[in-house]
Amino acid sequence: MKLLRYGEPGAEKPGMLGPDGEIRDISSLVPDLSGDALTPEGLARIAGADVSSLPLVEGSPRLGPPVAGTGKFICIGLNYSDHAAETGQKVPPEPIIFMKASSAICGPNDAVRIPRGSEKTDWEVELAVIIGKTAKYVSEEEAMDHVAGYCVANDVSERAFQTERAGQWTKGKSCDTFGPVGPWLVTADEVSDPQALPLWLKVNGETVQDGTTGTMVYGVRHLISYLSQFMSLQPGDIISTGTPPGVGMGLKPPRYLKAGDVMELGIEGLGEQRQECVPD
Amino acid sequence: MKLLRYGEPGAEKPGMLGPDGEIRDISSLVPDLSGDALTPEGLARIAGADVSSLPLVEGSPRLGPPVAGTGKFICIGLNYSDHAAETGQKVPPEPIIFMKASSAICGPNDAVRIPRGSEKTDWEVELAVIIGKTAKYVSEEEAMDHVAGYCVANDVSERAFQTERAGQWTKGKSCDTFGPVGPWLVTADEVSDPQALPLWLKVNGETVQDGTTGTMVYGVRHLISYLSQFMSLQPGDIISTGTPPGVGMGLKPPRYLKAGDVMELGIEGLGEQRQECVPD
Repeated sequence: MKLLRYGEPGAEKPGMLGPDGEIRDISSLVPDLSGDALTPEGLARIAGADVSSLPLVEGSPRLGPPVAGTGKFICIGLNYSDHAAETGQKVPPEPIIFMKASSAICGPNDAVRIPRGSEKTDWEVELAVIIGKTAKYVSEEEAMDHVAGYCVANDVSERAFQTERAGQWTKGKSCDTFGPVGPWLVTADEVSDPQALPLWLKVNGETVQDGTTGTMVYGVRHLISYLSQFMSLQPGDIISTGTPPGVGMGLKPPRYLKAGDVMELGIEGLGEQRQECVPD
Repeated sequence: MKLLRYGEPGAEKPGMLGPDGEIRDISSLVPDLSGDALTPEGLARIAGADVSSLPLVEGSPRLGPPVAGTGKFICIGLNYSDHAAETGQKVPPEPIIFMKASSAICGPNDAVRIPRGSEKTDWEVELAVIIGKTAKYVSEEEAMDHVAGYCVANDVSERAFQTERAGQWTKGKSCDTFGPVGPWLVTADEVSDPQALPLWLKVNGETVQDGTTGTMVYGVRHLISYLSQFMSLQPGDIISTGTPPGVGMGLKPPRYLKAGDVMELGIEGLGEQRQECVPD
């Protein structure tokens, strides 16, 4: 299934992409795509519905992030060997974890707001994993049972805030609108191998990232097991798994986003996003 | 006012500490101590009630964290000059921000679970600020208008996870139960000067931290303004403002927590916490 949330920011309703690309309202099945709705039981309830009997949503509403009530937006750093190389850093001996503020989450096509004082706002197309079942001290064998599905995410980053302003990366990762997620949550049963997905990002029509999740250093299975040794993962949590080469910081010379620039990004089978940059 | 949440984990109800130390049920006034209830309007609604007419809560129920729906648990690193010195680091040129997972939040007297594989679990008594009004690009002059109140927090930390396991601090800060908050939220009107509060922590009855918020490098007013330049702060967000000297890592030789150890900590006027350490 391709699950989504549509409507104005803060007032989104849960929906599903129908077989002809139409949106069906599933609010009679689940109150929102959060918590219980993302568990195996919640997803089974949605999957059991007769799609053609669900209300058709007219027009082309705005899409919100396809998951609500996200407690944690966990990101993995330097998780593609070729991206680590372009930033001049070694592949880490174990996964690097950092947090993005959940208030950074926005819809897949919402404007990305360039923070005041920013000179180094950058892009990162990433495969995001949505947790569907609480995970604590789980083994790699059990790990995939905890996945509700996958999304496209853009881990927008301000490099000066991230690395030149004292301390931890979160400062350059958490600005409002720095976390577009969507367009939809593709349930795990429709993604046969999360480690074999082409993903790309264009700026103003020019391809800058063109990679595959096949070159991820620490795969989804390992990441879930690994993270669950440090903290419990809960339904609605997002794990963004790192970015392939081609970020602005790695270009020669470096290239950063300015108001008016347009990012388009996607992952095969998971849909596409489009964001215009605007001043904040 | 001293606001609190009582009851079993995940099923807490909102309450208030009455004039004789009794708990009054305020669930007829606000559904929970989250979001709107923490705004100036929400707090005024609670303050306007006749306390003696509110239902008395019998017995001594467990206390939960006094704030619900926390989107961000933001911490400030090395924010006491004497604590920076004991860790062998310089006072940072601007505030160091890191995130604690919101899933780490627990009640003030809940057991602290020592993670599997931990050998360096440590304590940090901190003044926590609870946001009551959305803050974005606010000046220092406006900053304090955005504070709902203050709490005691224990920024429990696993030092090996934090600094020896690749990358960012969040890995050692986010374990379940690593964020005891409470016992209550003391509204801002009852804290005349947040930069003049004694705070202390004892392990097994021995005082290990005994400081004052007067030696904070970056005060509450500055922190709120500063943080709001990087991300919006929202009602229910927690800012934990750093710890004074005396953490286990800074002792000679270093001393860490083990199952059976008991932490007691407090801040003058904000109440006290007590946590027993147990294996996870």
